[in-house]
Amino acid sequence: MDNKREYIYRIEPGDADFMKRATLMSLADYILHTAGEDADRGGFGVRDLNLHNASWVLTRMALEVERMPAEYERIRVTTWVSAVTRAMTTRNFEVFDEKGVRIACAVTNWAMLDLSARRMLDLHLLPAYDSMTQDFPLPAALPCRLAPLSGGREYEHAVVYSDLDFNCHANSVKYIQWAVDTLPLELLQQKRFARTDINFIREARYGERLRIVAAEEALAFEIRNAEGEAVCRIAFRME
Amino acid sequence: MDNKREYIYRIEPGDADFMKRATLMSLADYILHTAGEDADRGGFGVRDLNLHNASWVLTRMALEVERMPAEYERIRVTTWVSAVTRAMTTRNFEVFDEKGVRIACAVTNWAMLDLSARRMLDLHLLPAYDSMTQDFPLPAALPCRLAPLSGGREYEHAVVYSDLDFNCHANSVKYIQWAVDTLPLELLQQKRFARTDINFIREARYGERLRIVAAEEALAFEIRNAEGEAVCRIAFRME
Repeated sequence: MDNKREYIYRIEPGDADFMKRATLMSLADYILHTAGEDADRGGFGVRDLNLHNASWVLTRMALEVERMPAEYERIRVTTWVSAVTRAMTTRNFEVFDEKGVRIACAVTNWAMLDLSARRMLDLHLLPAYDSMTQDFPLPAALPCRLAPLSGGREYEHAVVYSDLDFNCHANSVKYIQWAVDTLPLELLQQKRFARTDINFIREARYGERLRIVAAEEALAFEIRNAEGEAVCRIAFRME
Repeated sequence: MDNKREYIYRIEPGDADFMKRATLMSLADYILHTAGEDADRGGFGVRDLNLHNASWVLTRMALEVERMPAEYERIRVTTWVSAVTRAMTTRNFEVFDEKGVRIACAVTNWAMLDLSARRMLDLHLLPAYDSMTQDFPLPAALPCRLAPLSGGREYEHAVVYSDLDFNCHANSVKYIQWAVDTLPLELLQQKRFARTDINFIREARYGERLRIVAAEEALAFEIRNAEGEAVCRIAFRME
Protein backbone atom coordinates (compact mmCIF):
# COMPACT_ATOMS: atom_id res chain seq x y z
CA MET A 1 0.00 0.00 0.00
CA ASP A 2 1.27 3.47 -0.87
CA ASN A 3 2.05 6.03 1.79
CA LYS A 4 -0.50 8.71 2.61
CA ARG A 5 -0.07 11.70 0.33
CA GLU A 6 1.05 14.85 2.12
CA TYR A 7 0.95 18.62 1.76
CA ILE A 8 2.97 21.26 3.62
CA TYR A 9 1.65 24.68 4.68
CA ARG A 10 2.73 27.51 6.90
CA ILE A 11 0.31 29.33 9.23
CA GLU A 12 0.47 32.87 7.81
CA PRO A 13 -0.35 36.00 9.88
CA GLY A 14 -3.68 36.24 8.03
CA ASP A 15 -4.56 32.73 9.27
CA ALA A 16 -3.95 33.58 12.91
CA ASP A 17 -6.19 35.14 15.53
CA PHE A 18 -5.35 37.67 18.23
CA MET A 19 -3.69 34.86 20.23
CA LYS A 20 -1.34 34.26 17.26
CA ARG A 21 -2.76 30.80 16.71
CA ALA A 22 -4.55 29.45 13.64
CA THR A 23 -8.30 30.01 13.76
CA LEU A 24 -10.56 26.97 13.46
CA MET A 25 -11.61 28.46 10.10
CA SER A 26 -8.09 28.63 8.70
CA LEU A 27 -7.33 25.08 9.88
CA ALA A 28 -10.54 23.86 8.20
CA ASP A 29 -9.57 25.85 5.10
CA TYR A 30 -6.14 24.16 4.88
CA ILE A 31 -7.84 20.78 5.27
CA LEU A 32 -10.41 21.49 2.54
CA HIS A 33 -7.67 22.96 0.36
CA THR A 34 -5.75 19.70 0.79
CA ALA A 35 -8.84 17.78 -0.32
CA GLY A 36 -8.96 19.92 -3.47
CA GLU A 37 -5.25 19.55 -4.23
CA ASP A 38 -5.26 15.81 -3.66
CA ALA A 39 -8.40 15.24 -5.74
CA ASP A 40 -6.78 17.30 -8.53
CA ARG A 41 -3.62 15.21 -8.29
CA GLY A 42 -5.67 12.03 -8.60
CA GLY A 43 -7.57 13.35 -11.64
CA PHE A 44 -10.84 13.76 -9.70
CA GLY A 45 -10.66 17.47 -8.87
CA VAL A 46 -13.49 19.96 -9.17
CA ARG A 47 -12.09 21.06 -12.53
CA ASP A 48 -12.12 17.45 -13.78
CA LEU A 49 -15.70 16.92 -12.55
CA ASN A 50 -16.77 20.28 -14.04
CA LEU A 51 -15.91 18.87 -17.49
CA HIS A 52 -18.78 16.43 -16.87
CA ASN A 53 -20.99 19.15 -15.41
CA ALA A 54 -20.54 17.73 -11.91
CA SER A 55 -18.89 18.93 -8.72
CA TRP A 56 -17.96 17.75 -5.23
CA VAL A 57 -20.19 18.76 -2.33
CA LEU A 58 -18.99 18.54 1.27
CA THR A 59 -21.82 16.98 3.29
CA ARG A 60 -20.29 16.31 6.71
CA MET A 61 -17.08 17.11 8.54
CA ALA A 62 -15.57 16.10 11.86
CA LEU A 63 -12.48 18.00 12.98
CA GLU A 64 -10.49 17.21 16.12
CA VAL A 65 -7.81 19.50 17.46
CA GLU A 66 -5.24 18.46 20.04
CA ARG A 67 -3.18 21.64 19.69
CA MET A 68 -3.91 24.60 17.43
CA PRO A 69 -0.77 25.47 15.40
CA ALA A 70 0.82 28.88 16.02
CA GLU A 71 1.50 31.69 13.56
CA TYR A 72 4.52 30.90 11.31
CA GLU A 73 4.39 27.22 12.29
CA ARG A 74 4.71 24.73 9.44
CA ILE A 75 2.15 21.94 9.30
CA ARG A 76 2.10 18.74 7.28
CA VAL A 77 -1.35 17.50 6.25
CA THR A 78 -1.71 13.89 5.12
CA THR A 79 -4.85 12.74 3.35
CA TRP A 80 -6.42 9.57 2.02
CA VAL A 81 -9.77 8.34 0.75
CA SER A 82 -11.06 5.43 2.79
CA ALA A 83 -14.46 4.52 1.38
CA VAL A 84 -16.64 4.96 -1.66
CA THR A 85 -20.33 4.08 -1.67
CA ARG A 86 -22.95 5.00 -4.27
CA ALA A 87 -23.91 8.14 -2.35
CA MET A 88 -20.77 9.23 -0.60
CA THR A 89 -17.00 9.09 -0.23
CA THR A 90 -14.96 9.52 2.93
CA ARG A 91 -11.73 11.52 2.93
CA ASN A 92 -9.47 11.62 5.99
CA PHE A 93 -6.77 13.97 7.19
CA GLU A 94 -4.06 14.10 9.82
CA VAL A 95 -2.18 17.29 10.70
CA PHE A 96 1.37 17.04 12.06
CA ASP A 97 3.70 19.67 13.47
CA GLU A 98 7.38 19.94 12.60
CA LYS A 99 8.32 17.51 15.36
CA GLY A 100 6.05 14.91 13.75
CA VAL A 101 3.45 15.12 16.53
CA ARG A 102 -0.14 14.74 15.35
CA ILE A 103 -1.96 17.91 16.43
CA ALA A 104 -5.27 17.57 14.56
CA CYS A 105 -7.26 15.23 12.35
CA ALA A 106 -10.44 15.26 10.31
CA VAL A 107 -12.93 12.96 8.61
CA THR A 108 -15.07 14.36 5.78
CA ASN A 109 -17.91 13.02 3.64
CA TRP A 110 -18.45 14.16 0.07
CA ALA A 111 -21.18 13.62 -2.48
CA MET A 112 -21.05 14.26 -6.22
CA LEU A 113 -23.56 16.80 -7.56
CA ASP A 114 -25.01 17.07 -11.05
CA LEU A 115 -24.72 20.84 -11.61
CA SER A 116 -27.69 21.09 -14.01
CA ALA A 117 -30.20 18.81 -12.30
CA ARG A 118 -28.89 19.83 -8.80
CA ARG A 119 -29.16 16.20 -7.68
CA MET A 120 -26.64 13.76 -6.29
CA LEU A 121 -24.87 11.40 -8.67
CA ASP A 122 -23.89 7.76 -8.11
CA LEU A 123 -20.17 7.69 -7.29
CA HIS A 124 -19.86 4.41 -9.17
CA LEU A 125 -20.10 6.56 -12.29
CA LEU A 126 -16.41 7.19 -11.53
CA PRO A 127 -15.11 3.59 -11.65
CA ALA A 128 -11.45 4.69 -11.55
CA TYR A 129 -12.12 6.68 -8.38
CA ASP A 130 -11.78 3.44 -6.38
CA SER A 131 -8.04 3.67 -7.08
CA MET A 132 -7.93 6.66 -4.73
CA THR A 133 -8.87 4.59 -1.69
CA GLN A 134 -6.26 3.50 0.85
CA ASP A 135 -6.87 1.16 3.71
CA PHE A 136 -5.66 3.08 6.78
CA PRO A 137 -7.69 3.25 10.02
CA LEU A 138 -10.00 6.28 10.43
CA PRO A 139 -8.17 9.04 12.33
CA ALA A 140 -11.32 9.97 14.32
CA ALA A 141 -14.93 8.90 14.66
CA LEU A 142 -17.10 9.55 11.59
CA PRO A 143 -18.94 12.90 11.53
CA CYS A 144 -22.13 12.67 13.61
CA ARG A 145 -25.63 13.22 12.33
CA LEU A 146 -26.70 16.31 14.30
CA ALA A 147 -30.26 16.61 15.61
CA PRO A 148 -32.46 19.64 14.81
CA LEU A 149 -32.37 22.49 17.32
CA SER A 150 -35.56 23.79 18.88
CA GLY A 151 -34.91 27.19 20.46
CA GLY A 152 -31.98 29.40 21.30
CA ARG A 153 -30.39 32.81 20.86
CA GLU A 154 -30.65 34.08 17.28
CA TYR A 155 -28.24 36.06 15.12
CA GLU A 156 -28.83 37.30 11.56
CA HIS A 157 -26.56 37.20 8.56
CA ALA A 158 -27.30 38.08 4.93
CA VAL A 159 -25.03 36.20 2.50
CA VAL A 160 -22.67 38.77 0.93
CA TYR A 161 -20.14 38.76 -1.93
CA SER A 162 -17.19 37.80 0.27
CA ASP A 163 -19.08 34.73 1.56
CA LEU A 164 -19.42 33.21 -1.93
CA ASP A 165 -17.32 30.40 -3.35
CA PHE A 166 -16.89 29.47 -7.02
CA ASN A 167 -20.29 27.74 -6.94
CA CYS A 168 -21.87 31.09 -5.97
CA HIS A 169 -22.93 29.66 -2.61
CA ALA A 170 -21.71 30.54 0.87
CA ASN A 171 -18.32 28.90 1.41
CA SER A 172 -18.36 25.98 3.90
CA VAL A 173 -15.80 27.69 6.12
CA LYS A 174 -18.11 30.70 6.55
CA TYR A 175 -20.65 28.57 8.42
CA ILE A 176 -17.97 27.69 10.94
CA GLN A 177 -17.03 31.38 11.20
CA TRP A 178 -20.60 32.52 11.89
CA ALA A 179 -20.92 30.02 14.72
CA VAL A 180 -17.46 30.69 16.21
CA ASP A 181 -18.05 34.46 16.11
CA THR A 182 -21.00 34.09 18.51
CA LEU A 183 -18.80 32.51 21.21
CA PRO A 184 -17.47 34.62 24.11
CA LEU A 185 -13.85 35.71 23.64
CA GLU A 186 -12.97 34.27 27.10
CA LEU A 187 -14.10 30.81 26.00
CA LEU A 188 -11.95 31.05 22.86
CA GLN A 189 -8.99 32.06 25.01
CA GLN A 190 -9.41 29.35 27.63
CA LYS A 191 -10.43 26.30 25.62
CA ARG A 192 -9.71 24.58 22.34
CA PHE A 193 -12.09 23.10 19.75
CA ALA A 194 -11.47 19.50 20.83
CA ARG A 195 -14.05 18.25 18.32
CA THR A 196 -16.30 19.94 15.77
CA ASP A 197 -19.07 18.13 13.87
CA ILE A 198 -20.73 19.82 10.92
CA ASN A 199 -23.65 18.74 8.73
CA PHE A 200 -23.99 20.71 5.51
CA ILE A 201 -27.63 20.33 4.50
CA ARG A 202 -28.55 23.00 1.94
CA GLU A 203 -26.81 25.66 -0.11
CA ALA A 204 -27.10 29.32 0.89
CA ARG A 205 -27.23 31.77 -2.01
CA TYR A 206 -26.26 35.43 -2.41
CA GLY A 207 -28.59 37.77 -0.54
CA GLU A 208 -30.28 34.99 1.47
CA ARG A 209 -31.07 36.16 4.98
CA LEU A 210 -29.91 33.46 7.35
CA ARG A 211 -30.58 33.02 11.04
CA ILE A 212 -27.81 31.53 13.17
CA VAL A 213 -29.55 29.82 16.09
CA ALA A 214 -27.36 28.99 19.09
CA ALA A 215 -28.61 26.47 21.68
CA GLU A 216 -28.67 27.95 25.16
CA GLU A 217 -27.02 25.06 26.93
CA ALA A 218 -24.79 23.23 24.49
CA LEU A 219 -22.31 24.51 21.91
CA ALA A 220 -24.76 23.56 19.15
CA PHE A 221 -25.83 25.73 16.22
CA GLU A 222 -28.38 25.56 13.43
CA ILE A 223 -28.23 27.94 10.50
CA ARG A 224 -31.63 28.45 8.89
CA ASN A 225 -32.76 30.14 5.69
CA ALA A 226 -35.74 32.50 5.32
CA GLU A 227 -38.05 29.48 4.86
CA GLY A 228 -36.93 28.20 8.25
CA GLU A 229 -35.14 25.22 6.68
CA ALA A 230 -31.86 24.04 8.22
CA VAL A 231 -28.92 24.96 5.99
CA CYS A 232 -26.22 23.69 8.32
CA ARG A 233 -25.80 22.26 11.84
CA ILE A 234 -22.64 22.56 13.91
CA ALA A 235 -21.65 21.17 17.30
CA PHE A 236 -18.45 22.01 19.18
CA ARG A 237 -16.89 20.13 22.04
CA MET A 238 -14.47 22.47 23.79
CA GLU A 239 -11.88 21.32 26.32
CA MET B 1 21.23 49.84 -6.65
CA ASP B 2 19.89 46.41 -5.81
CA ASN B 3 16.97 44.89 -7.63
CA LYS B 4 13.52 45.07 -6.09
CA ARG B 5 12.92 42.16 -3.76
CA GLU B 6 10.22 39.76 -4.92
CA TYR B 7 7.76 37.20 -3.56
CA ILE B 8 5.79 34.55 -5.44
CA TYR B 9 2.22 33.48 -4.57
CA ARG B 10 -0.53 31.46 -6.14
CA ILE B 11 -4.18 32.54 -6.08
CA GLU B 12 -5.76 29.69 -4.11
CA PRO B 13 -9.46 28.70 -4.38
CA GLY B 14 -10.07 30.36 -0.99
CA ASP B 15 -8.73 33.66 -2.41
CA ALA B 16 -11.11 33.64 -5.35
CA ASP B 17 -14.68 34.87 -5.69
CA PHE B 18 -17.60 33.33 -7.58
CA MET B 19 -16.04 34.62 -10.84
CA LYS B 20 -12.90 32.57 -10.03
CA ARG B 21 -10.80 35.70 -9.74
CA ALA B 22 -8.92 37.01 -6.70
CA THR B 23 -11.06 39.27 -4.51
CA LEU B 24 -9.79 42.79 -3.83
CA MET B 25 -9.38 41.61 -0.22
CA SER B 26 -7.13 38.69 -1.09
CA LEU B 27 -5.00 40.84 -3.40
CA ALA B 28 -4.62 43.42 -0.61
CA ASP B 29 -3.82 40.58 1.78
CA TYR B 30 -0.99 39.27 -0.45
CA ILE B 31 0.37 42.81 -0.70
CA LEU B 32 0.29 43.37 3.07
CA HIS B 33 1.72 39.89 3.59
CA THR B 34 4.59 40.86 1.28
CA ALA B 35 5.18 43.99 3.38
CA GLY B 36 5.44 41.79 6.47
CA GLU B 37 7.77 39.25 4.86
CA ASP B 38 10.03 41.92 3.42
CA ALA B 39 10.23 43.89 6.66
CA ASP B 40 11.09 40.63 8.47
CA ARG B 41 13.82 39.92 5.92
CA GLY B 42 15.29 43.38 6.47
CA GLY B 43 15.25 42.98 10.25
CA PHE B 44 12.41 45.49 10.74
CA GLY B 45 9.45 43.11 10.98
CA VAL B 46 6.65 43.33 13.51
CA ARG B 47 8.42 40.69 15.62
CA ASP B 48 11.62 42.81 15.62
CA LEU B 49 9.71 45.96 16.56
CA ASN B 50 7.75 44.05 19.23
CA LEU B 51 11.05 43.45 21.04
CA HIS B 52 11.12 47.23 21.54
CA ASN B 53 7.43 47.34 22.41
CA ALA B 54 6.62 48.94 19.03
CA SER B 55 4.69 47.87 15.94
CA TRP B 56 3.94 48.98 12.38
CA VAL B 57 0.60 50.63 11.68
CA LEU B 58 -0.76 50.93 8.15
CA THR B 59 -2.09 54.48 7.75
CA ARG B 60 -2.88 54.79 4.04
CA MET B 61 -3.05 52.56 1.02
CA ALA B 62 -3.57 53.09 -2.71
CA LEU B 63 -4.15 49.98 -4.82
CA GLU B 64 -4.51 50.00 -8.59
CA VAL B 65 -5.67 46.95 -10.54
CA GLU B 66 -5.27 46.58 -14.27
CA ARG B 67 -6.35 42.94 -14.30
CA MET B 68 -7.45 40.84 -11.33
CA PRO B 69 -5.51 37.54 -11.31
CA ALA B 70 -7.50 34.33 -11.75
CA GLU B 71 -7.75 31.31 -9.46
CA TYR B 72 -4.59 29.14 -9.65
CA GLU B 73 -2.64 31.95 -11.35
CA ARG B 74 0.85 32.63 -9.99
CA ILE B 75 1.72 36.22 -9.18
CA ARG B 76 5.07 37.85 -8.45
CA VAL B 77 4.97 40.77 -6.04
CA THR B 78 7.95 43.13 -5.95
CA THR B 79 8.37 45.59 -3.10
CA TRP B 80 10.63 48.43 -2.02
CA VAL B 81 10.70 51.23 0.53
CA SER B 82 10.97 54.63 -1.12
CA ALA B 83 10.91 57.19 1.66
CA VAL B 84 11.35 57.57 5.40
CA THR B 85 10.32 60.71 7.26
CA ARG B 86 10.02 61.19 11.01
CA ALA B 87 6.32 60.29 10.93
CA MET B 88 5.96 57.85 8.07
CA THR B 89 7.54 55.46 5.61
CA THR B 90 6.33 54.62 2.10
CA ARG B 91 6.39 51.05 0.79
CA ASN B 92 5.59 50.26 -2.82
CA PHE B 93 4.48 47.14 -4.66
CA GLU B 94 4.10 45.90 -8.19
CA VAL B 95 2.22 42.71 -9.07
CA PHE B 96 3.19 40.79 -12.22
CA ASP B 97 1.60 37.81 -13.93
CA GLU B 98 3.54 34.83 -15.27
CA LYS B 99 4.08 36.57 -18.62
CA GLY B 100 5.78 39.42 -16.78
CA VAL B 101 2.90 41.85 -17.39
CA ARG B 102 2.25 44.26 -14.54
CA ILE B 103 -1.38 43.70 -13.50
CA ALA B 104 -1.55 45.70 -10.23
CA CYS B 105 0.46 48.06 -8.04
CA ALA B 106 0.18 49.68 -4.64
CA VAL B 107 1.63 52.47 -2.52
CA THR B 108 1.32 52.24 1.27
CA ASN B 109 2.19 54.52 4.18
CA TRP B 110 3.19 53.16 7.56
CA ALA B 111 3.81 54.70 10.95
CA MET B 112 5.57 53.17 13.97
CA LEU B 113 3.45 52.84 17.12
CA ASP B 114 4.59 52.71 20.74
CA LEU B 115 2.44 49.84 22.04
CA SER B 116 2.33 51.07 25.66
CA ALA B 117 1.82 54.79 25.14
CA ARG B 118 -0.33 54.15 21.98
CA ARG B 119 1.42 57.07 20.25
CA MET B 120 3.45 57.35 17.06
CA LEU B 121 7.24 57.05 17.27
CA ASP B 122 9.89 58.96 15.30
CA LEU B 123 11.10 56.66 12.52
CA HIS B 124 14.59 58.13 12.90
CA LEU B 125 14.77 56.01 16.06
CA LEU B 126 15.52 53.23 13.54
CA PRO B 127 18.67 54.68 11.92
CA ALA B 128 19.48 51.45 10.04
CA TYR B 129 16.00 51.46 8.49
CA ASP B 130 17.26 53.94 5.87
CA SER B 131 19.19 51.03 4.36
CA MET B 132 15.79 49.58 3.28
CA THR B 133 15.09 52.46 0.87
CA GLN B 134 15.57 52.05 -2.87
CA ASP B 135 15.28 54.85 -5.38
CA PHE B 136 12.75 53.55 -7.92
CA PRO B 137 9.89 55.73 -9.23
CA LEU B 138 6.53 55.41 -7.42
CA PRO B 139 4.34 52.81 -9.19
CA ALA B 140 1.17 54.90 -8.68
CA ALA B 141 0.11 58.23 -7.18
CA LEU B 142 0.45 58.45 -3.40
CA PRO B 143 -2.66 57.46 -1.40
CA CYS B 144 -5.10 60.40 -1.26
CA ARG B 145 -6.31 62.09 1.89
CA LEU B 146 -10.04 61.32 1.80
CA ALA B 147 -12.58 63.93 2.89
CA PRO B 148 -15.21 63.23 5.58
CA LEU B 149 -18.57 61.93 4.36
CA SER B 150 -21.78 63.70 5.34
CA GLY B 151 -24.75 61.40 4.65
CA GLY B 152 -25.44 58.12 2.94
CA ARG B 153 -26.84 54.62 3.31
CA GLU B 154 -25.82 52.98 6.57
CA TYR B 155 -24.87 49.41 7.42
CA GLU B 156 -23.99 48.02 10.85
CA HIS B 157 -21.19 45.70 11.88
CA ALA B 158 -20.05 44.64 15.35
CA VAL B 159 -16.37 43.65 15.43
CA VAL B 160 -16.21 39.88 16.00
CA TYR B 161 -13.45 37.35 16.78
CA SER B 162 -12.73 36.54 13.12
CA ASP B 163 -12.16 40.26 12.37
CA LEU B 164 -9.29 40.57 14.85
CA ASP B 165 -5.60 40.61 14.00
CA PHE B 166 -2.68 39.92 16.35
CA ASN B 167 -3.04 43.46 17.76
CA CYS B 168 -6.61 42.57 18.81
CA HIS B 169 -8.02 45.18 16.41
CA ALA B 170 -10.05 44.70 13.26
CA ASN B 171 -7.70 43.59 10.46
CA SER B 172 -7.12 46.25 7.76
CA VAL B 173 -8.42 43.94 5.05
CA LYS B 174 -11.78 43.64 6.85
CA TYR B 175 -12.51 47.34 6.27
CA ILE B 176 -12.15 46.76 2.54
CA GLN B 177 -14.43 43.71 2.81
CA TRP B 178 -17.20 45.59 4.62
CA ALA B 179 -17.22 48.28 1.91
CA VAL B 180 -16.98 45.83 -1.03
CA ASP B 181 -19.81 43.70 0.41
CA THR B 182 -22.23 46.64 0.13
CA LEU B 183 -21.70 46.90 -3.65
CA PRO B 184 -24.20 45.36 -6.07
CA LEU B 185 -23.09 42.00 -7.49
CA GLU B 186 -23.67 43.29 -11.06
CA LEU B 187 -21.16 46.10 -10.51
CA LEU B 188 -18.58 43.59 -9.23
CA GLN B 189 -19.20 41.45 -12.30
CA GLN B 190 -18.97 44.26 -14.83
CA LYS B 191 -16.18 46.47 -13.53
CA ARG B 192 -12.80 46.23 -11.86
CA PHE B 193 -11.35 48.16 -8.91
CA ALA B 194 -9.19 50.43 -11.07
CA ARG B 195 -8.05 52.35 -8.00
CA THR B 196 -8.76 52.09 -4.27
CA ASP B 197 -7.67 54.71 -1.72
CA ILE B 198 -7.89 53.91 1.98
CA ASN B 199 -7.20 56.05 5.05
CA PHE B 200 -6.89 54.08 8.27
CA ILE B 201 -7.67 56.58 11.01
CA ARG B 202 -8.46 54.75 14.26
CA GLU B 203 -8.37 51.22 15.59
CA ALA B 204 -11.61 49.24 15.97
CA ARG B 205 -11.73 46.91 18.96
CA TYR B 206 -13.59 43.67 19.72
CA GLY B 207 -17.30 44.24 20.23
CA GLU B 208 -17.27 47.82 18.89
CA ARG B 209 -20.44 48.54 16.93
CA LEU B 210 -19.38 50.18 13.68
CA ARG B 211 -21.50 51.95 11.09
CA ILE B 212 -20.45 51.61 7.45
CA VAL B 213 -21.69 54.76 5.71
CA ALA B 214 -21.86 54.61 1.90
CA ALA B 215 -22.13 57.87 -0.08
CA GLU B 216 -25.17 57.88 -2.34
CA GLU B 217 -23.44 59.13 -5.44
CA ALA B 218 -19.78 58.16 -5.32
CA LEU B 219 -18.10 54.88 -4.37
CA ALA B 220 -16.96 56.44 -1.09
CA PHE B 221 -17.26 54.95 2.38
CA GLU B 222 -16.70 56.05 5.93
CA ILE B 223 -16.60 53.56 8.78
CA ARG B 224 -17.56 55.14 12.11
CA ASN B 225 -17.40 53.92 15.70
CA ALA B 226 -20.15 54.30 18.30
CA GLU B 227 -18.84 57.79 19.16
CA GLY B 228 -19.38 58.81 15.54
CA GLU B 229 -15.63 59.13 14.93
CA ALA B 230 -14.24 58.07 11.56
CA VAL B 231 -12.30 54.80 11.87
CA CYS B 232 -11.53 54.41 8.17
CA ARG B 233 -12.36 56.04 4.81
CA ILE B 234 -12.34 54.22 1.49
CA ALA B 235 -12.87 55.41 -2.09
CA PHE B 236 -13.10 53.13 -5.13
CA ARG B 237 -12.74 54.09 -8.77
CA MET B 238 -14.28 51.32 -10.86
CA GLU B 239 -13.75 51.00 -14.61
